Amino acid sequence: MADTVLFEFLHTEMVAELWAHDPDPGPGVSAGSCGEEAGATTGQKMSLSVLEGMGFRVGQALGERLPRETLAFREELDVLKFLCKDLWVAVFQKQMDSLRTNHQGTYVLQDNSFPLLLPMASGLQYLEEAPKFLAFTCGLLRGALCTLGIESVVTASVAALPVCKFQVVIPKS
Amino acid sequence: MADTVLFEFLHTEMVAELWAHDPDPGPGVSAGSCGEEAGATTGQKMSLSVLEGMGFRVGQALGERLPRETLAFREELDVLKFLCKDLWVAVFQKQMDSLRTNHQGTYVLQDNSFPLLLPMASGLQYLEEAPKFLAFTCGLLRGALCTLGIESVVTASVAALPVCKFQVVIPKS
Repeated sequence: MADTVLFEFLHTEMVAELWAHDPDPGPGVSAGSCGEEAGATTGQKMSLSVLEGMGFRVGQALGERLPRETLAFREELDVLKFLCKDLWVAVFQKQMDSLRTNHQGTYVLQDNSFPLLLPMASGLQYLEEAPKFLAFTCGLLRGALCTLGIESVVTASVAALPVCKFQVVIPKS
Repeated sequence: MADTVLFEFLHTEMVAELWAHDPDPGPGVSAGSCGEEAGATTGQKMSLSVLEGMGFRVGQALGERLPRETLAFREELDVLKFLCKDLWVAVFQKQMDSLRTNHQGTYVLQDNSFPLLLPMASGLQYLEEAPKFLAFTCGLLRGALCTLGIESVVTASVAALPVCKFQVVIPKS
């Protein structure tokens, strides 16, 4: 019961804590792979970067524990499908709603009711608050992909709450 | 599967993040109700205090969601038993191992294998690292008690990893 909401409560606290402090502007650290921070202060960008980093390490650790031995990852697309199903269920108790790709290394994962945005009102009202609730999850995806051997850049965008799109770009090596 | 470890991964990251920054010494903020910080710097005490505060708010929120309507909390001891069973199972998927009281408002809750200490080696080797892994949970207990209408002071102590004792003191009003 409560353990399914425990992650969400803890995530909320973590965001609030990191945002409250708004750390001193550092030497131009950017949020890197977590987009949508237009207009954010340097401190807020650092907070996004910290959240993304925490998500990355949790994603790496989760990636090691997910039952990937049951799947044969022959193709990149299989890995992305795995994230949309197994990883999303493990973290959010639901599957991603859709997965699209241009077949050139760019994937768009859409969650029509992203749990970490649900506590906010729907619509456009709190749209500018959204980025800080997405950074951790961007990192989570990037970390899980990293464990599975794929380097990526993950950004998120919200057009209307609580719909969220995660864009995964895998540079061709 | 992974959702049971998600909380633990996230907690680990949170502790690491707050400890890494070792925030600037503030105006004498003490860790308050989270003991065992003897020898800690002011910054570390603030980190403990922050962790305890996050735990408190998560505990409050969890306390509101736990199925307490099935229980009649006639006595303080019933509330403590509820924490040892329902709250602990919700958060750690196990019950507390023992609960003792002096019947004068002091309760000692013992977990012989506290999950947040398990990643550390057993014995005495990393004992001084333990307090930062206890602060959040001290707050969690205090927050849940607060939601249930009981003001308390919660401290934790570790004599040998991974055994942990939480002491709950409820001042007589």
